[in-house]
Amino acid sequence: MPTTPPRPPTGQPAAAALSATPRSTIRRGARRARTDRAELYAVLDAGLVGHLGVSVDGSPYVLPTGYGRDGDTLYLHGSTGAATLRAAAAGTPVCFTVTHVDGVVYARSAFHHSMNYRCAVVHGAARVVTDPAERLLGLQVLTDHLAPGSWAATRQPDRRELAATVVLALDLAEASLKVRTGPPGDDERDVAANAGDWAGVLPVSTVLGAPEPCPLLPDGVPVPARVRERGLSRPG
Amino acid sequence: MPTTPPRPPTGQPAAAALSATPRSTIRRGARRARTDRAELYAVLDAGLVGHLGVSVDGSPYVLPTGYGRDGDTLYLHGSTGAATLRAAAAGTPVCFTVTHVDGVVYARSAFHHSMNYRCAVVHGAARVVTDPAERLLGLQVLTDHLAPGSWAATRQPDRRELAATVVLALDLAEASLKVRTGPPGDDERDVAANAGDWAGVLPVSTVLGAPEPCPLLPDGVPVPARVRERGLSRPG
Repeated sequence: MPTTPPRPPTGQPAAAALSATPRSTIRRGARRARTDRAELYAVLDAGLVGHLGVSVDGSPYVLPTGYGRDGDTLYLHGSTGAATLRAAAAGTPVCFTVTHVDGVVYARSAFHHSMNYRCAVVHGAARVVTDPAERLLGLQVLTDHLAPGSWAATRQPDRRELAATVVLALDLAEASLKVRTGPPGDDERDVAANAGDWAGVLPVSTVLGAPEPCPLLPDGVPVPARVRERGLSRPG
Repeated sequence: MPTTPPRPPTGQPAAAALSATPRSTIRRGARRARTDRAELYAVLDAGLVGHLGVSVDGSPYVLPTGYGRDGDTLYLHGSTGAATLRAAAAGTPVCFTVTHVDGVVYARSAFHHSMNYRCAVVHGAARVVTDPAERLLGLQVLTDHLAPGSWAATRQPDRRELAATVVLALDLAEASLKVRTGPPGDDERDVAANAGDWAGVLPVSTVLGAPEPCPLLPDGVPVPARVRERGLSRPG
């Protein structure tokens, strides 16, 4: 995304470490907690969708939501008619989670079966973006996160479309990152007792396929480089 | 998963249609709502991880969670020490969401950029499973969902491991399913005005890689068929 600052080059001071508020302190599996803000950015930037949690009338709702990042601000958007967006816009606490599943961990015991994953969790209250320039920035960041290069290459929102869209900003001040990598964490007794049984990791990844043209396209319209050459960011 | 009933063969009556309670009625994008219970099962069965939403001290938490399905019951599990699991076990309302991203939809306008996806959302109150036989069933279903065949092939939980684990059951009574497929839904004006610009779908899928053996494995231990031949279920 052109609007996000580049990651600091190796050897430069890293961004500020992640906070540890009561909500963002990882208590279970604390050895998997990461505190490097650049790692948080990388996990967020590599995702296509996050899950937004918000309470409406006393019940939690968890819905997949597109997003984009500009520095320490996440932008979310949605229809003005969506109840969850309205609740988030009213300032109720929200939680926004981006998870990558990286592998299925096969252990020698059922108990130690696990997943390798990277998971970013952001707590806070969303801010409704009202400034017209920041609304456009937020939509640009969202569009170019989903489809890099598409903002400049396609028609930008008109007044009617803007009126139908809520843009929310969520600060990355209260965020945590949890990562599991590597082989199973079996008990020694199980390793010893099952030397002939396979254990290990089955890697999981997200891949892009061959572009499928819209049926309304005339023949011969080439696939643009921004689509044809797109890759998915992977863990660094 | 051997413990889940097979989908009804084509031509047989489908399972009961999905409910439409106030929480499970899809209001935004209602044309994307599906009401076929077999489709709900397929989306749940194809996922590796879901996102569990629960309120703790007035703030929503959304955390990736393993699960498994047995008929109309979802089983979740976790550590007895996890605050979110404790809150869910206390009967507070929860929401459990499984999302598959199937494609990035490139439109002729920024506004109509979208994603193709399948998303199952389950509302309810979780039940703490206390019956020893059902606890084992739940853990079997969870293990074999994550790693088919692993329950029978590995050491089952001992008393200490069982004591450290909460097993929750969530009924699929209040569930909804939303699916987007197909090309962009551009305005006619944009199709007409941008006949030379590419639009379409970039497919996204989740794939399994080559198994990575645990470093503690002796040389020559073969990868078992349950790992080597594993596929991911895809939409039907």
